[in-house]
Amino acid sequence: MRYRARVEYDGTDLCGFQLQRHGRTVQGELETALARLSGGRRVRVDGAGRTDAGVHASGQVIAFTYQGRLSREQLWRALDTLLPRDIAVGPLIRAEATFQPRYAARQREYRYTIRTGTRSPLQERFALGVRASLDLPAMDAAAGVLIGRHDFSAFGGWHRQPIRTLHRVRIRRTGKMITIDVVGDAFLRQMVRSIVAALLRIGRGEATAEDLAAALRSQERAFAGAIAPPHGLCLRRVRFGTASARRNSTTDDDDEDI
Amino acid sequence: MRYRARVEYDGTDLCGFQLQRHGRTVQGELETALARLSGGRRVRVDGAGRTDAGVHASGQVIAFTYQGRLSREQLWRALDTLLPRDIAVGPLIRAEATFQPRYAARQREYRYTIRTGTRSPLQERFALGVRASLDLPAMDAAAGVLIGRHDFSAFGGWHRQPIRTLHRVRIRRTGKMITIDVVGDAFLRQMVRSIVAALLRIGRGEATAEDLAAALRSQERAFAGAIAPPHGLCLRRVRFGTASARRNSTTDDDDEDI
Repeated sequence: MRYRARVEYDGTDLCGFQLQRHGRTVQGELETALARLSGGRRVRVDGAGRTDAGVHASGQVIAFTYQGRLSREQLWRALDTLLPRDIAVGPLIRAEATFQPRYAARQREYRYTIRTGTRSPLQERFALGVRASLDLPAMDAAAGVLIGRHDFSAFGGWHRQPIRTLHRVRIRRTGKMITIDVVGDAFLRQMVRSIVAALLRIGRGEATAEDLAAALRSQERAFAGAIAPPHGLCLRRVRFGTASARRNSTTDDDDEDI
Repeated sequence: MRYRARVEYDGTDLCGFQLQRHGRTVQGELETALARLSGGRRVRVDGAGRTDAGVHASGQVIAFTYQGRLSREQLWRALDTLLPRDIAVGPLIRAEATFQPRYAARQREYRYTIRTGTRSPLQERFALGVRASLDLPAMDAAAGVLIGRHDFSAFGGWHRQPIRTLHRVRIRRTGKMITIDVVGDAFLRQMVRSIVAALLRIGRGEATAEDLAAALRSQERAFAGAIAPPHGLCLRRVRFGTASARRNSTTDDDDEDI
């Protein structure tokens, strides 16, 4: 029986989604809990996005195949009970036997949160503190340069197929909080945080939209490879297409990452 | 020179506001930092509310007298730099030499935050998770019983003068989050959390507004002294009156607490 589910985590004390030899990971914690519910057999957990260490998620999507005797509801309750406090799983949903969230995902939505002004202990777990005042219209205008289908090598780790489609970058201020919502079909490793770091430089007046455009064209690691810290980033939503859309997918490679 | 300032803290790892022999407290951390800026002399820090261990604040108000050579701006920057990550101080404001936030405060606003439904690792540091569905209209109606000037002995630690005025209890739901805003002139120790625990019982259908009214009249510890956990509570604002209003104050005793 194959299931999919939404997973939420506070990434602060986690070494990212993907299983590591050392350190707690989301995949590792889920697999440990599922093995306990499967008589010790390993249950492989697949995720829609390999979030890095320290990155949070409110809408990660996982899938796994379960061969035990618990009902869907029993399995969900037992799994959620066995998970540590910083990881929670939503209700299980039946999935096709071949469902792989990573390849089936058509769109990912990330939010980067910034808190301006004085330090805020109540916000800093999930927001980057920035003392400088930021020129939001300049950031907004510059973000437009990145929208569309491009080779994003300048904003991500090396990848043999670095073409991605960025659908939307939306920057909003509410009081002292600034959110940058980034939506695309898929992202290269560290791509969202690279884009945020570039936008912050522009917001501080240290770079321009022209610099951003030139960096994108260069296809070389831009702005000295600066990336924004992980704790401001959260994977909020993964959208899936139809099976026929999946067959025509252009993102069916194995390295999609953020 | 006497200063006042707004203080924000994440109470998770703190043993409350007030100085303790063992454990980190807000007053202790502030006094340690100020002593370092005063050649080792103790600088006594007064607060407007003695929040308990685990309770947060976004709008605590403190006051202290400083006799060193740093300017107001220099002192603020240095103090904020010396504080641990979970405590932050806002800009310093000149205060009257006799200003005592505890006695000068005319009104305190607290918020209790509840998250309903499944577990949420991103919310649980600052919200109580409640799986049961809650009857908000019943809670709202019952809260009306408590509004006004009463002997609140049933909802607080022992106190020789337990009369307090509760101005407002406002319960709102936004998606899965419920907030209970409680505003009063002052609060007995654990009074806000006792009221929240009683309202939760009513929301679950385990008690009625009549039970609440009877408990208030009884002046005996109500509902077996149940109190809601501290991590859902946050001191959001302290309001001060005029000097003449302060002289006519009815809250000028030493035990005001939450």
